[in-house]
Formats: sequence, structure tokens, C-alpha cells
Amino acid sequence: MKIELASSYGFCFGVKRAIKIAENSKDGVTYGELIHNSEEIRRLKENFNVKTLNTIDEMKNENKVIIRTHGITKSDLKILKDQNKNIIDATCPFVTKPQSIVENMSEKGYDVVIFGDINHPEVKGVMSYSVGNVFVVLSAAELENKKLGKKVAVISQTTKKIEDYINLVGYLMTRVKEVRIFNTICNATLENQEAVRELSNRADVMIIVGGKNSSNTKQLHIISKILCKDSYHIENENELKKEWFLDKNLCGISAGASTPDWIIKKIIEKIKKIV
Amino acid sequence: MKIELASSYGFCFGVKRAIKIAENSKDGVTYGELIHNSEEIRRLKENFNVKTLNTIDEMKNENKVIIRTHGITKSDLKILKDQNKNIIDATCPFVTKPQSIVENMSEKGYDVVIFGDINHPEVKGVMSYSVGNVFVVLSAAELENKKLGKKVAVISQTTKKIEDYINLVGYLMTRVKEVRIFNTICNATLENQEAVRELSNRADVMIIVGGKNSSNTKQLHIISKILCKDSYHIENENELKKEWFLDKNLCGISAGASTPDWIIKKIIEKIKKIV
Repeated sequence: MKIELASSYGFCFGVKRAIKIAENSKDGVTYGELIHNSEEIRRLKENFNVKTLNTIDEMKNENKVIIRTHGITKSDLKILKDQNKNIIDATCPFVTKPQSIVENMSEKGYDVVIFGDINHPEVKGVMSYSVGNVFVVLSAAELENKKLGKKVAVISQTTKKIEDYINLVGYLMTRVKEVRIFNTICNATLENQEAVRELSNRADVMIIVGGKNSSNTKQLHIISKILCKDSYHIENENELKKEWFLDKNLCGISAGASTPDWIIKKIIEKIKKIV
Repeated sequence: MKIELASSYGFCFGVKRAIKIAENSKDGVTYGELIHNSEEIRRLKENFNVKTLNTIDEMKNENKVIIRTHGITKSDLKILKDQNKNIIDATCPFVTKPQSIVENMSEKGYDVVIFGDINHPEVKGVMSYSVGNVFVVLSAAELENKKLGKKVAVISQTTKKIEDYINLVGYLMTRVKEVRIFNTICNATLENQEAVRELSNRADVMIIVGGKNSSNTKQLHIISKILCKDSYHIENENELKKEWFLDKNLCGISAGASTPDWIIKKIIEKIKKIV
């Protein structure tokens, strides 16, 4: 039986990059959880002595500070800089980009609209870069009673759906004279979905790896199940069953955005052993 | 019977303004038809000796040159300026605006997309202001195989529908990193439609004035007919019939964007006479 990984799966570029940075920053401290994956954070602590602290006060006695993938607020960054910390920036470049856009546009007199969740660390960081009016919304309706300037710049949280973003922009076009849109959506999740679609169309059995409560992993499983009825969603290698692979020619594998490569590797090794 | 005009009807701001300018420019020559209404152009010729010429060569021996509402190309304007003509600009300000946006954006390195009809004089004039790449399209599909830069500025012909413009922008958002949208749609037509809707909801009889081949007038008639079954589309006062107004309390009146006020006045006088 052949085993084939989806052409795009698991960790996105920004997460992979952040982990590499953390691995190269032994004994460092990450300010906020580096990524949203506790297994990886535990591994970094055990293997590289990279700790996680969550408030600016706790950082006081630390020197080597790693900034998480989602970024932090401009004022927190300033405090760390003023304290002459050794700052290692693992902010995803796809997040740094909207931060600088928001700063630049608000300096130029644009009102800033952010399409995203005001409670998400990424959005908290991005909005902090505005020097003028900033509105964080999840729908056009939330802008209905807001007073907007004639010129509006719009950015999106990196993980939003483009269709929803387009709807928001369509509304803004009817409200103001100039809308300056920056497409800041990261398409990693979308790419994982497209890749699982392609692979499950050809595979005889599909293994989707990721937390049972991970919504993006569940989404991948739903897509794969439609195209390949023998699709299984597992968290680790212990769940694999020999009978799944009987008389199969091609086994496809994909994983959610929060699944580290080492878990996927373990699963592939186990499959090779049992078939 | 009460007679009430729709709160918005007939000539738009730009057309009214151009006619006033022409009336104040006795013996002048308009370069291209001032507006798309031959009756008005004849009236300006008869009452103010304002002639219409259509090519730049014919302008040679003229001094007082009136620029039409739709504007002209940058190069034609330059020729007239180089010839030291007395240039009277009747270009609608809603058209001058996209001209300057196109010039400014293309100078700043944006590719320019114009949502409009490449054969329309307004669009011909507007696109001539680009110093870089410019694409004139009526749908997203026309951009499918075009090579676009990372930054695109978009403007619309002033008379387009906002819904179609939004669709085009939605497509562009998936293609390029920055889309800078200027809402250059003139809402005069839309306002006329909204006003006729409101009035025909209350009126017992509706009179819609405008050319039988005028599509925006026909549109007004369709809207009014839905809400007031006794709706009539006429071109001039001779078509009015006394029986239309029997036992009516409120007569509503509207007119297409190419209908001069003096035609409407004649109709109102005739109605007052026959009821």
C-alpha cells in the first residue's frame, strides 16, 4: 500500500517558523503562548527550556523574550524594548503585515476597519497599531451606526473567510467614498482544505490527524469523508486499526493546522508496521 | 386634484449645470454633444447660438470652446489649450473626479481598472488620464486572463449599478494584495428611481415623462406601474388624455434623466387646463 501526504497539511508557514525560532532560542521565554498547541509548547519546554509567561509583569526578570506568532500590542512591545530585552520576534510575517498597514493607514488619516474577532490576540495586537479611529467587526451590521470618515482602510484577521470579507467590503463601498482594501487573509487553512479534497478523491483510505475538538481538523474530515468513505479522524497512532488498511492501494494523510509534524511521523511509522 | 413632482426627477446635477454654463456662453461651440438630448441641444443653438462640433479639427477656427458633460481626453484638452482657446469646462464634477483619481493612482504605480463601457465618451476621457496600465471592463470575467500588478485602483463609470461594481471588486480582492476602490458612481438615476417609488405609492395617477426609447425612463415607468396602476409614459403634452384624471386626488409626475424641465412644465400646465 502506498502512503501519500496531502500536498498541504498541518502547521502553517508562520507556526513552523515560530517553532524553529523557539528551538534556536534555548532558555528563552515566550510572551504569551507561542502557538495554540499545548503539546508543542510542552515539547519546547522539555527539549529547549523555552518557558511561557503570560503577563508583561512576569517578563520583568527575563532577558531573552520570544514574541508569539500572533504578535503583541505596540505598547507591550515598547515596554519590552524600553527594558532593553533581547527580543526575538516570532510574529508571523502575515501578522506583521497588517500591523504595519494599520499604522501606516491611520497615520495617513484613514479610518481603519478590521474584519476579525476583537478577543483574538492577533487582532488585539494589530488594532493597537492604529493612531486614529479603528473599528473591529465581524459583520457589516456592526458598522451600521458607526460614524465613518470618507476614507476607510480595511484589513482582515489572517484566518477569516474571503467570502465574508468581500461582503463587508461591499457594504463599505456603499457607505464611503474611498475604501482601501488589503487582502491580509492567510490562505494556509484554505490550502489544506483544497489539498485534502484532491487527495481523498484518489485515496482508498484517508487518515486525518488532529485534536478531536479542533474545528479545522473536523472540517478536513468532513471534506475527506464525502470523497472517500473510509476516512478516519484520529489524534494519535494508538487509534489506528489494521483492518482499515486491508486491500487498500492508496492511504492519504492530512492534518489540522495545530498538528505537529512529529505526531504525523509517528502515525506513518505505525501504519507501515501494521500493514 | 393635486399635482406633485417626485422629490428627485429628470436632469441630474451635472446636466443642469452644463446647460447653465452653455446658456452663459453665448456664441460658444461645444466640443462633442453637451448632453445626450437633441431637443436641448437644438434649443441652445436657437436661443444662445451655441453650436455643436464633433472633431478636434473642426475646432481650429473657434475660440470659445465648451467641454461637454462627459469630458474629453487629456490629449484633446491639451490641443485646445495649446491653441490658446477660451476653454469653458462643463465637464460634470462627478466625471472630473475619476479623471483625476486615474491620473493620481497611475502616477503612484497602481494598475487602474475602470468598470464601464469603453465606447462611452465619459470612459474614453477618464481612461486617457492614466499614465500606466489601464483596463476597462464590464465584468470580472474580462479580467481573467489579464496580468495585474499587486496594487490595483478601481473606479466606476458614473452611471453604473453599485451591485455590479461590488461584484467586480470582490473578484479583484481574490486576485491582488491591495485594491483601492473609489466609489465614483453618481446616484442621480438611483435617486430618481427611489423617488418615483415613494410617490407612486401615494398617487392615484402617475405621469412619467421621457423618450419612449429612453431606458431609464422606461425603468421609472415600470416601477411606478407596480405601485400605481394608472401610470402613463408620455413624451410630450399632446399625449395627455382628460379621462386619466377623472376622480383622482393626487397626480404624481416624474421624468427620465434626459428630459428637460421645460417639457415637464408644459405638461403640468396642460394637465391643469384639462382637469
